[in-house]
Amino acid sequence: MARINDHYLKLPAGYLFPEIGRRVARFAAEHPEAKIIRMGIGDVTEPLPPAVIEAMHKAVDEMGRRESFHGYGPEQGYDFLRTAIAENDYRSRGVNVSPDEIFISDGSKCDTGNILDIFGAENVVAVTDPVYPVYVDTNVMAGRTGEADESGAYAGLVYLKCTAENGFVAAPPKEHADVIYLCFPNNPTGAVATRAQLEAWVAYAREHQAVILYDAAYEAYISDPASPHSIYEIAGAREVAIEFRSFRSEEHTSEL
Amino acid sequence: MARINDHYLKLPAGYLFPEIGRRVARFAAEHPEAKIIRMGIGDVTEPLPPAVIEAMHKAVDEMGRRESFHGYGPEQGYDFLRTAIAENDYRSRGVNVSPDEIFISDGSKCDTGNILDIFGAENVVAVTDPVYPVYVDTNVMAGRTGEADESGAYAGLVYLKCTAENGFVAAPPKEHADVIYLCFPNNPTGAVATRAQLEAWVAYAREHQAVILYDAAYEAYISDPASPHSIYEIAGAREVAIEFRSFRSEEHTSEL
Repeated sequence: MARINDHYLKLPAGYLFPEIGRRVARFAAEHPEAKIIRMGIGDVTEPLPPAVIEAMHKAVDEMGRRESFHGYGPEQGYDFLRTAIAENDYRSRGVNVSPDEIFISDGSKCDTGNILDIFGAENVVAVTDPVYPVYVDTNVMAGRTGEADESGAYAGLVYLKCTAENGFVAAPPKEHADVIYLCFPNNPTGAVATRAQLEAWVAYAREHQAVILYDAAYEAYISDPASPHSIYEIAGAREVAIEFRSFRSEEHTSEL
Repeated sequence: MARINDHYLKLPAGYLFPEIGRRVARFAAEHPEAKIIRMGIGDVTEPLPPAVIEAMHKAVDEMGRRESFHGYGPEQGYDFLRTAIAENDYRSRGVNVSPDEIFISDGSKCDTGNILDIFGAENVVAVTDPVYPVYVDTNVMAGRTGEADESGAYAGLVYLKCTAENGFVAAPPKEHADVIYLCFPNNPTGAVATRAQLEAWVAYAREHQAVILYDAAYEAYISDPASPHSIYEIAGAREVAIEFRSFRSEEHTSEL
């Protein structure tokens, strides 16, 4: 008999965002006069800029003509794109990342889930609290946790409390962890780590031979010039961190 | 210390297709006069048809205007698309699949790998031989096999020989299996299963309470009107099969 992955049974009945959606819909129906600021899924609010639209039209036309259409691209991504990312997102900030260290995927969310496949089941995983639910749920599904307690905390995970006292940026814990999720600017709090805070995390990871999964999907929102946009701006991070990013278009639209 | 997933060490040094690429390149360099028919990766050869190009241009324009742009779609896929698939790929063949049973993903290849997450580690997996390497490698990575022997066959997998004697369509085995990969028209042999052959597989799956992962990515190539395009054309298949598909445009371009 085919057996399901029993670890899924540890998940709560609903994923967070559909549950938020249901409660918001119910509240809105009961209070039609209320103005609601939706803090659930952070969806986009603006259309794509003209340079992106133009580039996409060109790409579509390419696919319609026998002379220019192309099939499967290189599995790590097109060289022109990897080179542009290495130049504009890294070398421009003094970080020596080469194009062949960059993998183009379908997005940070899928990647932070899929990357877990390359790690063994026995790793101890640390997450911030509060945390983007994808980091936790994918580890639950993969069997790296025990059951959830009444507060929703899973046995076996190391939770790093983010509170007003620590400015919503947790320091490295006393306990050992093998895989650590960090996300700055943070989803959901918006907190940004300082250089000193990231240095402490890199030092911790080097001491514990741990791997930091660094989610920089929101780095384009950083406005303080002193804040690192990439964990690779920290010396020694290259040996202990994998960084996830999204495309940004606000600074480079004219180059797209 | 962070540990990798040791199951990856069971994989051979190179994935099949890059290795084919290297050998073809070497042969071509040594025999510049040879005409080579490439039987490795089956890449597309024709540009997208005008109706698809037009629809993609419209979609791009939608994303460039504030009135019409949209953010995240529904997680299972847009209703208009699920409804079109239910109508044109299933109900038009007398198969009662409803739109809410259809999940729109980024493709059959990713899906046949990702679907394994929902199955327990203890399932016995059956694959045809020869087989699309993704089915095997994803199970190796997930730890559902032992080591490979000298022929490349993994301990713990049930291999179903496809030979000239059985017309390259294997019959259900004597042994038990919990999860069975079937792909018709087959990658790599091109063989198409008859209705009777699929009925035998559905009967086997029902008897063994097994799940058939049915890859119909190439169903548009079926020319014999008697051959099923979907496993759901077989009575009883709905309870034991998950079907994977790709979009096809050859019959429905005017509707896209």
